[in-house]
Amino acid sequence: MREFELIAELTRRFGATTSAGCLLTGIGDDGAVTALPPGHQLVSSIDSLLVGTHFPNDSPGAMVGYRALMVSLSDLAAMGAEPLFVLLALNLPASAESWALDFADGAREACEATGAKIAGGNLTRGPLAVTVSVHGSVPAGTAVLRNGARTGDYVYVSGHLGGAAAALRTGFASSALSDRFWRPRARVELAPVLRQMANAAIDISDGLLQDLGHLVRASGCGAELDSARLPVFPGATPDDAWYGGDDYELCFTAATPPPFPAWCIGRIVAEPGVRLDGQPPTRAGFDHFG
Amino acid sequence: MREFELIAELTRRFGATTSAGCLLTGIGDDGAVTALPPGHQLVSSIDSLLVGTHFPNDSPGAMVGYRALMVSLSDLAAMGAEPLFVLLALNLPASAESWALDFADGAREACEATGAKIAGGNLTRGPLAVTVSVHGSVPAGTAVLRNGARTGDYVYVSGHLGGAAAALRTGFASSALSDRFWRPRARVELAPVLRQMANAAIDISDGLLQDLGHLVRASGCGAELDSARLPVFPGATPDDAWYGGDDYELCFTAATPPPFPAWCIGRIVAEPGVRLDGQPPTRAGFDHFG
Repeated sequence: MREFELIAELTRRFGATTSAGCLLTGIGDDGAVTALPPGHQLVSSIDSLLVGTHFPNDSPGAMVGYRALMVSLSDLAAMGAEPLFVLLALNLPASAESWALDFADGAREACEATGAKIAGGNLTRGPLAVTVSVHGSVPAGTAVLRNGARTGDYVYVSGHLGGAAAALRTGFASSALSDRFWRPRARVELAPVLRQMANAAIDISDGLLQDLGHLVRASGCGAELDSARLPVFPGATPDDAWYGGDDYELCFTAATPPPFPAWCIGRIVAEPGVRLDGQPPTRAGFDHFG
Repeated sequence: MREFELIAELTRRFGATTSAGCLLTGIGDDGAVTALPPGHQLVSSIDSLLVGTHFPNDSPGAMVGYRALMVSLSDLAAMGAEPLFVLLALNLPASAESWALDFADGAREACEATGAKIAGGNLTRGPLAVTVSVHGSVPAGTAVLRNGARTGDYVYVSGHLGGAAAALRTGFASSALSDRFWRPRARVELAPVLRQMANAAIDISDGLLQDLGHLVRASGCGAELDSARLPVFPGATPDDAWYGGDDYELCFTAATPPPFPAWCIGRIVAEPGVRLDGQPPTRAGFDHFG
């Protein structure tokens, strides 16, 4: 299949139309043209997933497509933003055309579940890698940042943690664990409520303790956590839940309980650092370069 | 250097500040927050450059950083958009920290030359590759698309062509040719005028004849070109100029001459296809997958 044939078929699989919602000009020009809702600001993030590092070598295209989109869209959810559109850069080895078409099906499914549109992309030849640039919107001035936590806030997580880490640790021992890794659901449906009541938020990609550490450092405060309150995913260990990444639930702080199911695991305090039952965490977090 | 130390140093080199112009929240949160100028629409594009495919293995980081940004910003120029911000995904081999810092210096230089801000990024470990997601703005409804060429339009190019192809063909035989490959200048200064007077535009990345072919196909028309009028870069051959890519000049069509230096190389006609002195081009264009 030649490059332009593959692009045409990918475009069809993406369900990409010239215009849809915010998207005025989609795939097929030098750039995509989009209109933000009036009075809104843009929220943008970029992530790459590489074969062998972020997903196994024989991963089906549809699973990688779905997960790659959700991993990036999760950043929008953590900002309280609702998805608008996505740009995709695919680096494909030779003879990966069929894999790429499956990838497009998975990416489309993630878009349909979250309201995002695929607005454009780029194809190159080389080791399998996917870069996703995601863009959403918030009413002006309402983005939920990492730096807004206040002493006295409660610390919440949006779901059970550690399932994805347990999946990797056990070699995908059950379909429930496997789904936690492969089928993360960016919590974009929480975005409007987070904008109303959360003081700070972050998505849990590298592990709860590490990601919460970023949040309290940005906010100039600390957190005291209670291990008895941690919602551990069935089949995962507490270590999976504290230190494991890849769940893509949200961690946020608020002065009052949210109007959706969430688990309070501690409080924001003035003293810097994160403490677990009064002690510093025993393990360091995930370092992509470690 | 650990990941977070490298990110901190890259952020410093990028000259990235928390807020600058349209950029309200930059590097350091789950996403960047930007505000479009009132009454404007967003124009977005993504491109990847891979070592060994798009630049030689021993290329200095600053040269790759400058070129990677300009290659992507050129897509904005072709849409008549003025640059706002950039997201960068860097895939770095082990021990490439110093290369990455040089890359940041080059990227910053390209941003300073075009008004773009670096708003965020992502670091991964693997074979050297750079993905750049660029974003600019146009007053609503004024983006210059590929599909607007009209029969009778003149076909213009914004500069001498073939220099970058000659550089690759001759092994960078002179500094003038080398600069044509390594120091492309995204023609973003032409964007406001193109919005006023161009009916269609595309940037010349894969070769003039191929890229103009995309434009006339999208516009449902054709083009008759006059080889005597082609501005060939000194040291390049006409074949370099017709078929070679990487120059990142613009090709556009308009009913009247533009108020800046540009070369008229032919006319838009009703009959589909591109003809050179009345004949179809003899060579096929560049296929990234060929």
